[in-house]
Amino acid sequence: MKQEHIDQINKAVAAVAAKKHINHFYFVACGGSQAFMMPAQFMFDKELETPSGIYTSNQFVHEVPKALGEDSVVITCSHSGNTPETVKATEMARSMGATTIALSNLVDSPLWNAAEYPIHYEWGKDADASDLNKAVLYSLVFRILDAVAPCDKYKEGIASVENINDVLEKAKALYADKLKEWGKKYKREKMIYTMGSGACYGETYSFAICLLMEMQWIHSNCIHSGEYFHGPFEVTDFDVPFIIVKGIGSTRPLDERAYNFCKKYSDCIMLIDCEDFDMTGIAESVREYFAPLVAGAVLRSLADEFAYQRGHDLGVRRYMWKMEY
Amino acid sequence: MKQEHIDQINKAVAAVAAKKHINHFYFVACGGSQAFMMPAQFMFDKELETPSGIYTSNQFVHEVPKALGEDSVVITCSHSGNTPETVKATEMARSMGATTIALSNLVDSPLWNAAEYPIHYEWGKDADASDLNKAVLYSLVFRILDAVAPCDKYKEGIASVENINDVLEKAKALYADKLKEWGKKYKREKMIYTMGSGACYGETYSFAICLLMEMQWIHSNCIHSGEYFHGPFEVTDFDVPFIIVKGIGSTRPLDERAYNFCKKYSDCIMLIDCEDFDMTGIAESVREYFAPLVAGAVLRSLADEFAYQRGHDLGVRRYMWKMEY
Repeated sequence: MKQEHIDQINKAVAAVAAKKHINHFYFVACGGSQAFMMPAQFMFDKELETPSGIYTSNQFVHEVPKALGEDSVVITCSHSGNTPETVKATEMARSMGATTIALSNLVDSPLWNAAEYPIHYEWGKDADASDLNKAVLYSLVFRILDAVAPCDKYKEGIASVENINDVLEKAKALYADKLKEWGKKYKREKMIYTMGSGACYGETYSFAICLLMEMQWIHSNCIHSGEYFHGPFEVTDFDVPFIIVKGIGSTRPLDERAYNFCKKYSDCIMLIDCEDFDMTGIAESVREYFAPLVAGAVLRSLADEFAYQRGHDLGVRRYMWKMEY
Repeated sequence: MKQEHIDQINKAVAAVAAKKHINHFYFVACGGSQAFMMPAQFMFDKELETPSGIYTSNQFVHEVPKALGEDSVVITCSHSGNTPETVKATEMARSMGATTIALSNLVDSPLWNAAEYPIHYEWGKDADASDLNKAVLYSLVFRILDAVAPCDKYKEGIASVENINDVLEKAKALYADKLKEWGKKYKREKMIYTMGSGACYGETYSFAICLLMEMQWIHSNCIHSGEYFHGPFEVTDFDVPFIIVKGIGSTRPLDERAYNFCKKYSDCIMLIDCEDFDMTGIAESVREYFAPLVAGAVLRSLADEFAYQRGHDLGVRRYMWKMEY
């Protein structure tokens, strides 16, 4: 990771560490950026006694949690740095005295200027994965965890971020043939469900709302593996496609149970099993948390394959950025 | 509300009030029961500085939030009282010293016996709405709020529960003709989106996963109105149906914005506008919180109409209760 990112992260972490009392961490963003922060909130919930929550920006702005104030830390993200709801959420949180940290690809964007501690990440196919949004987020959250409750595990997390690029490349290579097959086989589907849980839930949510719905105009719904048996599973049928991510760690049994049932009644399952991945370079203690990054890279390749097979470029939009809304 | 329910609620509230310190409220359940508690968690987030979170039971059991312990209050629900994940979540929380409160229709069920403070609610078309699950939950949460941070608003909430039956009946009558029309018009749809936010989000989530997916085998996805513009709206088209609930109170602008956009590009919108309801008997101060109960009654009537039009009884299942899973 470039020193520029580490310096920005360290400034933010020092501000968090300097707080006498932290009453609440809030992760606030929209759409794909919200999904991107879901594993961070999952980690905080599991690792810290200090409460944390995740919000879509506009609800955060309109509802305003009672506990938000000087003792709070608010972490926001917008790729373009221009998402008005997220800029507003950051401004509001800052005006209420909260410590505000924002991640963005665009330096000097409205979000950048709204937050007290802006952090830049790289973008594009040429960048090393350790400089991209997810690596920068993970570096930030492991450093915050280590500042608030120092332990080896978090230091291992910080170090593991540096090795992520190779792990992603190996996973994409491992799944390359399968992704080609799935892209061709399922290219005419009009509705594809996704399913996941725990640290990986955000990736499956993001794939449903951003890659399938937004970028491919394919109907979708991300079902939490733990919720599947409590209603949603009744839609399962031989011709209903599901993309299922089996994570690793504490919530894997939920994914496994959902997958084991689903495969009995659907003939159209795309399974991404995080146990398949060669995670050399990622410390054992934090692999559960890194699994979604790897699954996410595989899912992204699947989206590329769908786009190619369907002749529907991932950059095509009919409403987004095209009009006022 | 029957004295039996009030006595059980008061016992639970007294236990909460007796706690020296509350570090966290956890709402934990599966599927429709989780959705049912979403407005309660929304209220707590808005009204209290004490943090609160909502979990699907099996993730709660497998992930175990770090803050869960003697200072916590865990509120669970299972209609049958037999949902194994929710029973386990309650047992686990109790064994860790948390105050456990469970709502169920079945006295002496496994959930009933797992919780320290079980609370019974009525069920069925003959019961007065003030004895049903939602009224009992609202009575509980307003009493907890009033015990933790006494104020007139919460007392008005407790009193308003008693008047809910008439409000629901009037709302169903108001929408009766529309529901008949919608049931007929959209009965052949294979995919119907729902959309809502704030206090009403749980009702739209519940309608998607329980009424449409589970009970009608119609594909669905509940989109949060605040997330709609950040990906999902790209699927909007003239023939894509949406059921939209416009709530009242703080997050209404989110619903309004989503509806205003959606109606320009979809010709198939079923709008339930909570401002249409005659809420006489419900105090102004708490109408935002009661709106989902009223919208939920209208949605339930819509499900009845779909069931009738499609010849697909709401009680039909192919997997649930039919096999091991």
